[in-house]
Parts: sequence; C-alpha cells; structure tokens
Amino acid sequence: MDHGTPGYHDDKKQVLARLRRVEGQVRGLQRLIEEDTYCIDVLTQVAAVSKALQGVGLLLLDEHLRHCVAGAAASGDGDRTDALVHEATKAVERMLRA
Amino acid sequence: MDHGTPGYHDDKKQVLARLRRVEGQVRGLQRLIEEDTYCIDVLTQVAAVSKALQGVGLLLLDEHLRHCVAGAAASGDGDRTDALVHEATKAVERMLRA
Amino acid sequence: MDHGTPGYHDDKKQVLARLRRVEGQVRGLQRLIEEDTYCIDVLTQVAAVSKALQGVGLLLLDEHLRHCVAGAAASGDGDRTDALVHEATKAVERMLRA
Amino acid sequence: MDHGTPGYHDDKKQVLARLRRVEGQVRGLQRLIEEDTYCIDVLTQVAAVSKALQGVGLLLLDEHLRHCVAGAAASGDGDRTDALVHEATKAVERMLRA
Repeated sequence: MDHGTPGYHDDKKQVLARLRRVEGQVRGLQRLIEEDTYCIDVLTQVAAVSKALQGVGLLLLDEHLRHCVAGAAASGDGDRTDALVHEATKAVERMLRA
Repeated sequence: MDHGTPGYHDDKKQVLARLRRVEGQVRGLQRLIEEDTYCIDVLTQVAAVSKALQGVGLLLLDEHLRHCVAGAAASGDGDRTDALVHEATKAVERMLRA
Repeated sequence: MDHGTPGYHDDKKQVLARLRRVEGQVRGLQRLIEEDTYCIDVLTQVAAVSKALQGVGLLLLDEHLRHCVAGAAASGDGDRTDALVHEATKAVERMLRA
Repeated sequence: MDHGTPGYHDDKKQVLARLRRVEGQVRGLQRLIEEDTYCIDVLTQVAAVSKALQGVGLLLLDEHLRHCVAGAAASGDGDRTDALVHEATKAVERMLRA
C-alpha cells in the first residue's frame, strides 16, 4: 500500500517534543542508576517513562485512525479500509503485549 | 450520540462463545486455588485468562473501528467521526492501563 | 521443586471470593453483548474485568513473595531463593505481556 | 528505611548499557517521525521500545527481589521483609498500569 502523508503530519512538532521529553527521561534513568538510587524509586520512574512513551503511541494511533483510516473510509474504498483497520488492531495488540 | 447496531453485531455468536470460554477459565482458576496449586502455576493461568479477555477486547475494537468508526467516516459526518475516534483511543488507553 | 503449602493459603477465601466476582463480571459481559450494548461501553467493562483479574494476580504474587520467596531466603537456602526469584520475575513478565 | 547498596549494584554496567540502547531507540523514533514514516511502522517501533524499557524494569525487579527482599528475609527481619514485599508488589502494579 502507498501510505502518502502520515496521520501525525500536522502534529509532527508535538510528537517530536514529546519524544525528546521521553529521551530526557531515559537519560534521567541513567543518572538515577549512576547515583545508586533505590531500586523501587528507579522502577517508579521506569513506569513513568513507559507511560509517557505509551502516550506518544496513543497520540499516533489517534491521528492514524482520524486521518488514514477515516480517510480511506470517506473515500469509499472498503477493501483499503478493512486492511487499515486490521493493521490498526494488530498495532494495538503489539502495544498491549509490550 | 445514538449508536444503533453495535459493530460486533454479525459476530455476536463468536464473541459470546469466547466470553463463555473465558468464564470457564475463571472457574478453572477457582479450582486451581481450591486444590492448593502452586502460586506460580496459578499466576501463569491468570496471565492466560487475561490474554484471552484482551483478545475479546481486541475483537470488539476491530469490529467497532470497521463498522462504527469507518461507517461514520463513509457517511461524511466529520464531527461524528472525530468524536468516535477520540472515544476509541480513550478505550485503547483504558485497555493499556488495565 | 517441592512447593508445599502455597503462599496464598491463609487468604484462600479472599482469593476465591475475588475470582467468583470476576466470574460474575464475565457473565455480565455476556449479558452486555446479548443486549447489543454499545461497543465502547462493553470495552470499558472488559478493561474493568481485566483490572480485577490483574488484581487477583497481584495478590497471588504478593503472597508468593511474602511466604514462598521470603521463606526460602529466611531458611538460608540461597540456590532455592535464586530459583524462586527467577521464576517470580518470569511470572511478572507474563503478566506484563498478557 | 535505609536502603544501602541497591540490588542492581553488581549489574550497573549492564543496566546502563541497556538504558543507553533505549535512549538510542527513542532518538530513532524521532528520526522516523522526521522522515514521515508510516504511522503503523512508527507504532511497531514504539511497542519495541516499550518492551525494551519494560525489560530493564524486569531486570531491576529481579535484582531487587534477589538482593534487597531476600536479604531482609535472610537477616530474619520479618517486618522489614513484609514492608519490602508490599512495596515490590506496588511497583509491579505500577508497571502493569503503565
């Protein structure tokens, strides 16, 4: 399939800003380890970073459904819509299993 | 919003069969506890039941995107499509946090 | 390994009561499907049942760490403790991936 | 509570190496966005990074149980062991909800 403009196109700056924040959080985790921070406090922060990363995933999923999937449906291409929905559900499954 | 026929309408029998299987698995968990099964073996089975339940959730999500969300988009109702996408993303978020 | 009394032994009644509640919730899901409940409302309830089931898993994990793992450590059997910790971490991994 | 040496102390280098790899993966995600990569391919990679991060969490949890929790139990301090187990279960709960 040709995918054209990605669904997150208009939010690229926001997505990038959130990913840079996640990158900073991962560097923060390294500092916690270097400073011998108590295990549970590190784990709490690992969960926070995971949540932030999942948040980016949810934003990308939202934009994908809003633009790519709904766009295919609005264009009347049923086969493409079905393929995109199947693919989106599989992506959610990978998020759940991660 | 009026929701009309649910997206899983044509798969009702399959969804119900899977939920009955999950119900049987939950009863199986009770038997394991009654028989003093080793903790880790019970936990392995808890994870299997969770996975089966998430599988039903993924099927419902797929049908919802395929019929309700794509249907709204195909009908050209952009506001309704946007509202349904937002709602679907929130549902995925609840699945991730569960 | 011989496992003896499971870690949840003293909480058996509570574990069973929670599993019976989960079983009732799964039957409730079947009713929602039979009554053609809106997809998203069913998904919200699927997430609630998943959370309740994970709660039982967390209770079992807690009791396992408290009695079986800590018990092995208190008895001074380092090899057994190591094996039990490895096994517990693997169980948590399966819960995360479910 | 005084926590002393963290459980991951002997694996610090490995934990740091894995976190640096996660940091690189998060930068890789930013490149994917900048290059307008297809939404689903980005989501697949988000799930992979989440999994890598959870893997670090599982390693930290394993070391914590192995050294801190088992250490408290081996020292015969029941109250401290109970407190550490409770805290560890809460940490697992946060990982599950992340």
